[in-house]
Amino acid sequence: MAKSSFEYVKKFELDDTLLPDTWIIVRLDGKCFHKFSEDHNFMKPNDIRALKLMNYAAYQVLKDFNDVCLGYGQSDEYSFIFKKNTTLYKRRAAKLLTTINSKFSSSYVYYWSKFFGTQALQYPPVFDGRIVLYPSEANVIDYLKWRQADVHINNLYNTAFWTLVLQGKLSPAQAEKRLCGTVSADKNEILFKEFNLNYNKEKEIFKRGSLLLRQPVKMDESGAVISAIVDIHDDMLKEKFWVKYENLLDTKGKNKLPIYEGPLTDIIDEQIPLPQKE
Amino acid sequence: MAKSSFEYVKKFELDDTLLPDTWIIVRLDGKCFHKFSEDHNFMKPNDIRALKLMNYAAYQVLKDFNDVCLGYGQSDEYSFIFKKNTTLYKRRAAKLLTTINSKFSSSYVYYWSKFFGTQALQYPPVFDGRIVLYPSEANVIDYLKWRQADVHINNLYNTAFWTLVLQGKLSPAQAEKRLCGTVSADKNEILFKEFNLNYNKEKEIFKRGSLLLRQPVKMDESGAVISAIVDIHDDMLKEKFWVKYENLLDTKGKNKLPIYEGPLTDIIDEQIPLPQKE
Amino acid sequence: MAKSSFEYVKKFELDDTLLPDTWIIVRLDGKCFHKFSEDHNFMKPNDIRALKLMNYAAYQVLKDFNDVCLGYGQSDEYSFIFKKNTTLYKRRAAKLLTTINSKFSSSYVYYWSKFFGTQALQYPPVFDGRIVLYPSEANVIDYLKWRQADVHINNLYNTAFWTLVLQGKLSPAQAEKRLCGTVSADKNEILFKEFNLNYNKEKEIFKRGSLLLRQPVKMDESGAVISAIVDIHDDMLKEKFWVKYENLLDTKGKNKLPIYEGPLTDIIDEQIPLPQKE
Amino acid sequence: MAKSSFEYVKKFELDDTLLPDTWIIVRLDGKCFHKFSEDHNFMKPNDIRALKLMNYAAYQVLKDFNDVCLGYGQSDEYSFIFKKNTTLYKRRAAKLLTTINSKFSSSYVYYWSKFFGTQALQYPPVFDGRIVLYPSEANVIDYLKWRQADVHINNLYNTAFWTLVLQGKLSPAQAEKRLCGTVSADKNEILFKEFNLNYNKEKEIFKRGSLLLRQPVKMDESGAVISAIVDIHDDMLKEKFWVKYENLLDTKGKNKLPIYEGPLTDIIDEQIPLPQKE
Repeated sequence: MAKSSFEYVKKFELDDTLLPDTWIIVRLDGKCFHKFSEDHNFMKPNDIRALKLMNYAAYQVLKDFNDVCLGYGQSDEYSFIFKKNTTLYKRRAAKLLTTINSKFSSSYVYYWSKFFGTQALQYPPVFDGRIVLYPSEANVIDYLKWRQADVHINNLYNTAFWTLVLQGKLSPAQAEKRLCGTVSADKNEILFKEFNLNYNKEKEIFKRGSLLLRQPVKMDESGAVISAIVDIHDDMLKEKFWVKYENLLDTKGKNKLPIYEGPLTDIIDEQIPLPQKE
Repeated sequence: MAKSSFEYVKKFELDDTLLPDTWIIVRLDGKCFHKFSEDHNFMKPNDIRALKLMNYAAYQVLKDFNDVCLGYGQSDEYSFIFKKNTTLYKRRAAKLLTTINSKFSSSYVYYWSKFFGTQALQYPPVFDGRIVLYPSEANVIDYLKWRQADVHINNLYNTAFWTLVLQGKLSPAQAEKRLCGTVSADKNEILFKEFNLNYNKEKEIFKRGSLLLRQPVKMDESGAVISAIVDIHDDMLKEKFWVKYENLLDTKGKNKLPIYEGPLTDIIDEQIPLPQKE
Repeated sequence: MAKSSFEYVKKFELDDTLLPDTWIIVRLDGKCFHKFSEDHNFMKPNDIRALKLMNYAAYQVLKDFNDVCLGYGQSDEYSFIFKKNTTLYKRRAAKLLTTINSKFSSSYVYYWSKFFGTQALQYPPVFDGRIVLYPSEANVIDYLKWRQADVHINNLYNTAFWTLVLQGKLSPAQAEKRLCGTVSADKNEILFKEFNLNYNKEKEIFKRGSLLLRQPVKMDESGAVISAIVDIHDDMLKEKFWVKYENLLDTKGKNKLPIYEGPLTDIIDEQIPLPQKE
Repeated sequence: MAKSSFEYVKKFELDDTLLPDTWIIVRLDGKCFHKFSEDHNFMKPNDIRALKLMNYAAYQVLKDFNDVCLGYGQSDEYSFIFKKNTTLYKRRAAKLLTTINSKFSSSYVYYWSKFFGTQALQYPPVFDGRIVLYPSEANVIDYLKWRQADVHINNLYNTAFWTLVLQGKLSPAQAEKRLCGTVSADKNEILFKEFNLNYNKEKEIFKRGSLLLRQPVKMDESGAVISAIVDIHDDMLKEKFWVKYENLLDTKGKNKLPIYEGPLTDIIDEQIPLPQKE
């Protein structure tokens, strides 16, 4: 029963260290979430409970991984951006990828009822994950813009599609045909003229997705400040976002982000120590 | 808002296809499970509920992934072996690794109460994962023997340690000192002479870990047979195991495993179609 | 001038260790050798001087690298097969690839005049290289058959093409058109009926390429045997080759190859120690 | 003889594309050049013929590879830096590495006699190679400083060592002992006080290594300018170098380097078109 004669098999584990000083992005994606959303009667085109659960699972990831400086989520996907000089797990790819993936997956199930109440989770969901490296900050900004442009395109389409189906009483096939070949302006017009729906007034979380970042937050009237993970829905495609958050991706820019001035979300609220709340 | 000007960032996703016709093993490992087991009052040295939950989560993986021909678990780790010629997800490493890891993690939470009843899960657990490739069947067999020899060594130690602590009233430090330098025979003797405990009669699941494989199973007296995932606890370090299961790793050996003759476990039972059970 | 403040850049060198116990094949390929062969007036369809120079450069590689058990060359390419358990350079990919590539490239220039006499080499040639891994011996055999089937197909075509051009006085375009859509039998027939050329009687080195392997060779009438690198041109597509050389790829089959019975080639001759030649 | 049944082996060639928009450095290193330099009676501590041959082989590489923006050589090693956005060979690692390595190796042999005259090359030399990626320009500058600091340290040591041996008549062991524990200032003093040798006046090529870059060069008195590969020996550890060559690594800085003002080296001279030389 000598363990040693089999231990040679350990040598087949190859090193998967990622290039130093390079941005590491882990992106998770729901597997077969089209079916999953139907099996769980997700509201169309967006289910606020499902989005909040995604954000809450991602928040658990940021709480555990201090070196994740940013999370960005939309629909059934979430991206996590590590500080470029992180040395967590010696930058081993599989270790970084799977611990993030596992924490997110188990949190999604664990916190399901917090957002879906008594509606049961039918089966364990699956998220796949990948790692992408980016050499420059400009690449990372373009990555975030790419994902947010994707939300815009998909959400405008889905909003038009489901409005045509649910309010316009078209069949899915008819709605699809109706939207075929239309540009953004056309879809905005259909929504506005036919259904009196101003797309610009849709919820920001639907139009922009969610951004999780670490920002100084005032705890109370005393002016005391804590560093907290905040959930915002800003427009990263606008330059003013990158002016406001100019140190967001700066590895040296610790605590240099402006003081958070948005609403007290549930996620922020639970980070404020109890005594101060009284 | 042209998505196309940012889409170049997709090109940074590099190909991670694994070598064809090579054995792929995914091994998951509980992160900080020493603490997790204490936080959840796991019985020492083994908690049968925890082991059964691991097996059940692994069983969910095998149900989803037909190309996984074998699962082997012990303590807080589980290995999954793919058929060597699998082309699932075009053999992309991150995809294979994360879908297995995610399914296991979310299942662990989802089925917690099935094994722990009203005892609450305190927080979402995390499993890390890695992929290892093996060129030959002999390597895979040695891999399995390596993991099973590890169970033996650890379990004998843990059994002796916890018996000294729980029954012998030694402090952990005293128990550790007592066992320092002992070989297997010494530990067996301590258990037998001082505590009248015959280690050989310990539960097989504790001594051998658990093996999940696909085997023909008789449904009932009629002799009808189904292919089912069975959970066994055999000794893979003995050659007779590999004689009995000679086609276990043979990619062409479909359905050629001997008919299962072990007990009707809960896992097997739930795979037998209802009508036949009446 | 402290070297140490810059030494962090060393950490960007990532590990490229290849999977253990797996066949490593390095294949080199002449870059722009169509032009190179024209610039050096290579005979068409085959230039025996050029092929012998390729073989001689490969022979230098085998002399330097004991862990290369086999070389196979054709046209402007050469494959080198390492023993599957080699640990040369700790199996680091770039190291193995570049040392083989460099030795071959510098040898090609160094020994040019040995085969081309006073005809000058016009400029330094370039060979690119790649590494491919194969998990099983069957894969390696199929690899060799693949490369040798390639010689056959190309050489029959080239022989027909250049015979039509050089003897048949067709233009290259006419020759290409003439051969378009023909199968092997057609090309054989054109050669035989129109040019009285029996393709089967063409030189083996042209039809089969060249194989370099280590075999016991009788030095002289006394029966004394040395282990030498021999250059042969056998048909690996025939099973009898693999019967005769059954231990060729067997890592344990040292010295078990049959005694060499072919002609005393220049390559073999120079390995026989001088005293015995008298 | 169907080629197709073996062609599956091609699928074992895995993609080795390098991360886009990242600096690629290929570094070549002479294998066993300590022995090689002895076998060829290289002058100690530096052989100007050998260094010029290295530079000339590297110059052949830059002539062939327009995307190499910089070469830096010292002793028996040479580094080649690609423009960070190069797409040569689709950024496939093995292709980039081996073509550079092969061109350098074959050029070293091909041009040997240009620098060593009738002294024969004893055998084909071997250079190994590696690829390292750097995400930022700052990393690349530090890489170059690292290699140049290495030259300084080694050359001062070697100059002191060989002066002690050749002029001071010490044995190598005595010279080694004498220098053990000395810092730069000590070595400078030994050279100056004992041998009247001012290290600062040693040839720049010995003290700094050689840099190959593309710079505008005045062809003649007319002021006409060509873009040429120039060989310089500047001090990259000084900031004024990086001020002067501020666009050296700038991918957009085409032709923006200052006009070359150094001596007309052999390498530069042969790039000036003949008519203008009259």
